[in-house]
Amino acid sequence: MALTVPRGAEEGEGGEEEHLQVLDSLLQKIKASGLKLQLCTNETQATREKFVKKLQGMGFDISVAEVTAPAPAACRLLKERGLRPHLLVHDDLVPEFAELDKTNPNCVVLGDAAENFTYANLNEAFRLLIGMEKPVLISLGRGRYYKETDGLKLDVGAYMKALEYACDVQAEVVGKPAKTFFESALAELGLPPEQVIMIGDDIVNDVGGAQRCGMRALQVRTGKYRPCDENHPHVKPDAYVNNLAEAIDILLQQL
Amino acid sequence: MALTVPRGAEEGEGGEEEHLQVLDSLLQKIKASGLKLQLCTNETQATREKFVKKLQGMGFDISVAEVTAPAPAACRLLKERGLRPHLLVHDDLVPEFAELDKTNPNCVVLGDAAENFTYANLNEAFRLLIGMEKPVLISLGRGRYYKETDGLKLDVGAYMKALEYACDVQAEVVGKPAKTFFESALAELGLPPEQVIMIGDDIVNDVGGAQRCGMRALQVRTGKYRPCDENHPHVKPDAYVNNLAEAIDILLQQL
Repeated sequence: MALTVPRGAEEGEGGEEEHLQVLDSLLQKIKASGLKLQLCTNETQATREKFVKKLQGMGFDISVAEVTAPAPAACRLLKERGLRPHLLVHDDLVPEFAELDKTNPNCVVLGDAAENFTYANLNEAFRLLIGMEKPVLISLGRGRYYKETDGLKLDVGAYMKALEYACDVQAEVVGKPAKTFFESALAELGLPPEQVIMIGDDIVNDVGGAQRCGMRALQVRTGKYRPCDENHPHVKPDAYVNNLAEAIDILLQQL
Repeated sequence: MALTVPRGAEEGEGGEEEHLQVLDSLLQKIKASGLKLQLCTNETQATREKFVKKLQGMGFDISVAEVTAPAPAACRLLKERGLRPHLLVHDDLVPEFAELDKTNPNCVVLGDAAENFTYANLNEAFRLLIGMEKPVLISLGRGRYYKETDGLKLDVGAYMKALEYACDVQAEVVGKPAKTFFESALAELGLPPEQVIMIGDDIVNDVGGAQRCGMRALQVRTGKYRPCDENHPHVKPDAYVNNLAEAIDILLQQL
């Protein structure tokens, strides 16, 4: 099974703390049942190692291999295509790209760079792109905004749109709901999509993305869920559940 | 007649210096002939006063009333609709909005803010917009990028796209090629559109915008002109001229 982790969940902010406690006991239940688990996150402000350490510090029994995140998916894609990235990402994410040659870049990789989204850095990324014969822009997500303790922040998707417009290119998105992202998760699970169920709160990024890869997907009526999701014009979950606990109970009953 | 001034022209950078000398002698020719003239610029990094002072300092015989620019057009629009702007613009443009009430803002006005395009300022503008019942975003242009002596810079249009995407709104653009912009120019000339000819180098912003307001428009084969403009799918100038001098000569011969 694949599980989504909402961004900022590891901060324990907002209504996520309860979600985390539930998640902890559910992880144990799942592992005890023998089901394989993959956490799918669009986190791009830290390496998987750092992300997992945070979760472990909160008592979660989770390993790096059980996490699918955009940056490692992007690394695979860059290696496959012989691309040398210029990074406009959060400082804490840089180590994820340590193995790649970054001299004489032939693409730009955009993450949620937060304070690194300066006028100078955006102009630099733009100049590199516009100087390429065929600009390649790889974005680690397409989120519009997210909430931190000090308020709403523009997410990577907004800056992606700025560069897309300025360079007249279309970014390749490797975070959820991109197909490459869910293919990474399947590869890490070592399972065909028909044997995997996604549980998530985001109708488009979690449910839609997983279904496009051939998985079944449940939407939980918590977190990002909005009642209007149930009338979404394009995406229909295989089932709704009130919360994660209910989803897991149903799954375990059917083993 | 209406004339376009390319952005950065007053800096005398790139190939613009020659253009400026030609422009100077042409202004004198036009004024001597009795034709009315309006300079149409998308300049949003300085007030019209400052812009005109620069031109005057370079020997141009031009007054503030002979310049149409996005900020004064935006001010008219804000007053008409009782809007109180939050400004994300260049410091030098702020005085243009001096008369307007800016307390408890109910819209965001976006210009080419240059160094003011910080992460913090973009988040602030975003939060104001997303907090409005119906977000109103007014952009002083939709340019993708421009060139300065130290290289290419992202223009206001890129940041407009970022905010549009994050807030799911469509900006109202008041710079060229917006209809309101050319209507301002006509109002300042005090002439009906059929008596006005636009001369510009930008097929969409100058030629297309002016024609949509009922003016005729000539494209000069200098500056932003590209040979592929002659196959533009939507915009066809009333005539091409090799340069401004040729355009003026033709016009004066027909008086």
